[in-house]
Amino acid sequence: MAGNSFGNLFKLSTFGESHGEAIGGVIDGCPPGIKLDLELIQFEMERRKPGQSKIVTQRKEPDSVKFLSGIFEGVTTGTPIGFIIENTNQKSKDYSHIKDVYRPSHADYVYDQKYGHRDYRGGGRSSARETACRVLAGAIAKQVLNKLKVSAFVSSVGEIFLDKPYQELDLQKTESNIVRCPDDATAKKMIERIQEIKKEGDTIGGTITCVIKNVPVGLGEPVFDKLHADLGKAMLSINAVKGFEYGSGFCGAAMKGSEHNDLFNEDGTTRSNLSGGIQGGISNGMDIYFRVAFKPVATIMKSQETIDNKGNKAEMLGKGRHDPCVVPRAVPIVEAMAALVLADFYLINKIYSI
Amino acid sequence: MAGNSFGNLFKLSTFGESHGEAIGGVIDGCPPGIKLDLELIQFEMERRKPGQSKIVTQRKEPDSVKFLSGIFEGVTTGTPIGFIIENTNQKSKDYSHIKDVYRPSHADYVYDQKYGHRDYRGGGRSSARETACRVLAGAIAKQVLNKLKVSAFVSSVGEIFLDKPYQELDLQKTESNIVRCPDDATAKKMIERIQEIKKEGDTIGGTITCVIKNVPVGLGEPVFDKLHADLGKAMLSINAVKGFEYGSGFCGAAMKGSEHNDLFNEDGTTRSNLSGGIQGGISNGMDIYFRVAFKPVATIMKSQETIDNKGNKAEMLGKGRHDPCVVPRAVPIVEAMAALVLADFYLINKIYSI
Amino acid sequence: MAGNSFGNLFKLSTFGESHGEAIGGVIDGCPPGIKLDLELIQFEMERRKPGQSKIVTQRKEPDSVKFLSGIFEGVTTGTPIGFIIENTNQKSKDYSHIKDVYRPSHADYVYDQKYGHRDYRGGGRSSARETACRVLAGAIAKQVLNKLKVSAFVSSVGEIFLDKPYQELDLQKTESNIVRCPDDATAKKMIERIQEIKKEGDTIGGTITCVIKNVPVGLGEPVFDKLHADLGKAMLSINAVKGFEYGSGFCGAAMKGSEHNDLFNEDGTTRSNLSGGIQGGISNGMDIYFRVAFKPVATIMKSQETIDNKGNKAEMLGKGRHDPCVVPRAVPIVEAMAALVLADFYLINKIYSI
Amino acid sequence: MAGNSFGNLFKLSTFGESHGEAIGGVIDGCPPGIKLDLELIQFEMERRKPGQSKIVTQRKEPDSVKFLSGIFEGVTTGTPIGFIIENTNQKSKDYSHIKDVYRPSHADYVYDQKYGHRDYRGGGRSSARETACRVLAGAIAKQVLNKLKVSAFVSSVGEIFLDKPYQELDLQKTESNIVRCPDDATAKKMIERIQEIKKEGDTIGGTITCVIKNVPVGLGEPVFDKLHADLGKAMLSINAVKGFEYGSGFCGAAMKGSEHNDLFNEDGTTRSNLSGGIQGGISNGMDIYFRVAFKPVATIMKSQETIDNKGNKAEMLGKGRHDPCVVPRAVPIVEAMAALVLADFYLINKIYSI
Repeated sequence: MAGNSFGNLFKLSTFGESHGEAIGGVIDGCPPGIKLDLELIQFEMERRKPGQSKIVTQRKEPDSVKFLSGIFEGVTTGTPIGFIIENTNQKSKDYSHIKDVYRPSHADYVYDQKYGHRDYRGGGRSSARETACRVLAGAIAKQVLNKLKVSAFVSSVGEIFLDKPYQELDLQKTESNIVRCPDDATAKKMIERIQEIKKEGDTIGGTITCVIKNVPVGLGEPVFDKLHADLGKAMLSINAVKGFEYGSGFCGAAMKGSEHNDLFNEDGTTRSNLSGGIQGGISNGMDIYFRVAFKPVATIMKSQETIDNKGNKAEMLGKGRHDPCVVPRAVPIVEAMAALVLADFYLINKIYSI
Repeated sequence: MAGNSFGNLFKLSTFGESHGEAIGGVIDGCPPGIKLDLELIQFEMERRKPGQSKIVTQRKEPDSVKFLSGIFEGVTTGTPIGFIIENTNQKSKDYSHIKDVYRPSHADYVYDQKYGHRDYRGGGRSSARETACRVLAGAIAKQVLNKLKVSAFVSSVGEIFLDKPYQELDLQKTESNIVRCPDDATAKKMIERIQEIKKEGDTIGGTITCVIKNVPVGLGEPVFDKLHADLGKAMLSINAVKGFEYGSGFCGAAMKGSEHNDLFNEDGTTRSNLSGGIQGGISNGMDIYFRVAFKPVATIMKSQETIDNKGNKAEMLGKGRHDPCVVPRAVPIVEAMAALVLADFYLINKIYSI
Repeated sequence: MAGNSFGNLFKLSTFGESHGEAIGGVIDGCPPGIKLDLELIQFEMERRKPGQSKIVTQRKEPDSVKFLSGIFEGVTTGTPIGFIIENTNQKSKDYSHIKDVYRPSHADYVYDQKYGHRDYRGGGRSSARETACRVLAGAIAKQVLNKLKVSAFVSSVGEIFLDKPYQELDLQKTESNIVRCPDDATAKKMIERIQEIKKEGDTIGGTITCVIKNVPVGLGEPVFDKLHADLGKAMLSINAVKGFEYGSGFCGAAMKGSEHNDLFNEDGTTRSNLSGGIQGGISNGMDIYFRVAFKPVATIMKSQETIDNKGNKAEMLGKGRHDPCVVPRAVPIVEAMAALVLADFYLINKIYSI
Repeated sequence: MAGNSFGNLFKLSTFGESHGEAIGGVIDGCPPGIKLDLELIQFEMERRKPGQSKIVTQRKEPDSVKFLSGIFEGVTTGTPIGFIIENTNQKSKDYSHIKDVYRPSHADYVYDQKYGHRDYRGGGRSSARETACRVLAGAIAKQVLNKLKVSAFVSSVGEIFLDKPYQELDLQKTESNIVRCPDDATAKKMIERIQEIKKEGDTIGGTITCVIKNVPVGLGEPVFDKLHADLGKAMLSINAVKGFEYGSGFCGAAMKGSEHNDLFNEDGTTRSNLSGGIQGGISNGMDIYFRVAFKPVATIMKSQETIDNKGNKAEMLGKGRHDPCVVPRAVPIVEAMAALVLADFYLINKIYSI
């Protein structure tokens, strides 16, 4: 109930703080008999991990996964998959600069107010370190959904937008550059922008677009658990996310019905796809696509006024190794959360066959 | 599991199709001892009901609520509140024009594919008629949350935007006009635009903004059940919604950290509120605000090409009484879903006091 | 959360008090495409209803079910099945004899303490009238599980025991007498015993045995949601139940392993079945059987000392029409709850097929 | 959903097989600010662990708990408590005697049938080793419920019964002997009986009684989640349990209402307590007591006929170090599961205060 589980039939529960001994979790409901490709799982972890390029935080964490159960002779057994990822890089350093001080636009203040007590050594439970568990679980979900293809990419960094529709992009190229934008020219500009921002000691926001292909018709439940509602919740649960839109999104709100309706082909596919692959909350077999907005990282390398936990004025000077822009590392997180949602609905959908 | 329940501790389960005998539901977990103002509940129903003005569908439904349990001598007893709302306006008319034909950008096709069987007399379960139950439950949730103030209003219709920040508006004026926009001049333009569109036999989209005041610090659970993640899911579960953003939203993705951070005042409030009243998924006591995008209604009064359930080409001509624009009637639905989310987190939060 | 729902994938939520306008509920998750036999459903209702014979309460309730959704042209659509059962027999009589007085071994005192407020016109939500909804939902669950055969019968009334093993009984004969015991001679004694007790103005307890045949191998989830754990919870949630045992039950606790183990035949069946058809929480294809203990009804037609809600001594004289023994009417309730558990695990089990 | 979680607000999820690297779990929903007594937690682990006396299995497992999160400076933070317990005693021995053979009255056969694949090195997920996680979580739940006193003890071994009512026993003496029976003379007989059975290479069943004192009025939810229904499920989910009864239990089924009713004292307590501290599913403040039946351990040191996974006849000769009787080690498991149920309802009950 306290919000550390995701999913109904394919369910991930996570635990762990950024400065504890380890983070980890349990995946309950993974079907038995799936031969897991452990290298693919580790590959996803590498895409998220810190220190992977010059435009992300220079912290080093190997993020190697230790599976403790649920897999026997390389195959899922149907029992819960327990795993841990050790925190190797939490230094026993001096936390005095943040111990009593609330960092602006971080969760320090609300955690103290809600729980009356806080692990002051870093973000604790609110740290994006927790998303490593999501990427792991998502990598397994992808293998459950083996025919579906979930591809996310960076579609904007600050005011630099990738302005081609996804259909004109080669999504295989996403991993060919460090910013994870499948258009070379735009990627180059984005990388330069992030490097500038970093030099300024500042940070910048961005957006990620995700495309899901080969989706069967029928995923999603009507009314409250619409497919896009659960995708939206999944994305909004990722640290720093401020918005979600699918299909025509906010643009659709300015359109007319006669422009917006997706007319059918005779095989049930549609000529246009402003619906984003979802009708009435249920997948219609067309590509699902959506866009996710990330705010700029709150930790900046500039002095900021703030208060301490007694309500006194204080000065905050960013220290440490932080991301100037989260979107390059958030691409695998977006994919992972999408895969978790789809795996859950995929299993729920089996119930409809009597 | 099949998606007809919402909430954990304050839980709404709904049932009913647009052309069945009645719709209804059960609210489980409403605390005992709340003296309900039944007139306020009916007032919310009136805000949603069809036929209320010249810019909405001319169907007539009294939408009067019949409570069957959980309330004794006007006070909630803590037992489940069962209720029904009769469908009085479903005519035994000829459905042949839609029985075998899939309406473009409706859920007909996916329901047939998912369930193998469909109530062809109208939208059935996918009809927005179901949202009457949400408005009812939300009206009760508002009374549970009596100090909080949830106020939604229409912030755009098509390309007509209300471009003042909500702080400059008098939200009391929302109900003073039929489009539910608290700025008179903009409201006038919106109403004209909807009338034009209706005359064309077309429909148009729009957005709704919602502001929640007097929120206590501490609502929302970290990690997966962040307050804005559940608000997002709630909004995306409303018929026709394509996007959700809170606080700085998609604009925030183009900003720098130094611009975006909300600096603290000495009392823990913040000078700016780009965070939208939520930090790390938990309310910080500032106003919560968010924006919801609605697509144009799919049923238009123009001829459209489509297919029937055998895959043959067919022609679709809109008939009946439909909304040219849903946002005026969706205002109370947005408020209701926000109230349901907040009531749930309000109850969950009681657990933290040992 | 507040305890008015049962099941995960095949989920029943109920509402309603004994003296309100109606009781009812929602069944969410019933698979689509099931042609319902409505007469069979009403038949189950008749087995539970008051006034059916001289040994049960003489109250009259037709208990006719009104389906409001989820069924179209006689077939389940996959959408939630909403239903109500009107309370036709709650008289606007004088409740003064129980309004302020706590009936011994009833729930009056704890409801008042827990909720601070109580519907004093009768048992309210704690009345066994609520079980009518369970019988209805169970009747639908039986049709989902059409190959399984769930058969309960009365195995004791007070000190009169049916001492044959179920294998020697013709379970078809259960409905041939009013006490629902498939052995004529024992049934006769039980009926006499209940009539005696009724004449004394007293009540008596009893047990029900339930046998489930044609169960597929594999129902039940390991660890916490063992099949017998959920059956146990289901039975213990029925009014007046004090105990549950399956297979060898309490007798098994006095046995040796060498006597108790069920040895395999070559086809995977077992020679004996002290396990009661369940190994490690999972059905093994053998008959499932269990026994449920019901206490004597608390309302007796004799004077009892008690207290009122101010803590003053009071006298309680039973009035009204009550059951001298609940087990004859509880037989369909036991079957219904068993069917709900099995239907849920049957749907969950579909997930294991990738 | 796949059955590896227990509880709603105080929720335990477990993972791990008997022969994997570790077992472990996550406790989500533990309130913040509880100063944990880690020695008390380890004390409970010692009560369950193998090798503790001459009448239990001689396997050696230190069962030391490694907390990974949720506790900071000795105090719960409100974030999930992740933990692991390493499996140090699983030998890389030859499993050929059980690899392909189904042990009678074990879960081997049903796991193979359900999952199509099995960890053949031991009980795997169906091993009672999993209960170590329950004891750990229960030890924390006890500290959440600090005023309540949960005391279980062995009330029978085979045909040797402790025939005093619990009110005449000094429950402090339970830990004074290795069989955990608070009556010295009976304990002596039980220990002798277990030693005899062990010498025979056989095993024997038994029962455990549990008493809970200082329970506040109001725990438990009406209808499906009655307090005793959840206690029953909790107990029946423990390995080898065949039956559960509370209060008058199966004996109550042979009684009259006039004998069975618990009459009130003026302060709301009752003179007798055949209700077992629960009315209508809700605690009434009197002692809660219940009895749990355990079958004899299925692994015996005698030759048994069985089959292999091809359906061929095979011989099974028990090897290894097993318990001749589980009840002495099951006492802390019964207490732990009771504490988990009570902690959950204790948190749920906070919701009723507006």
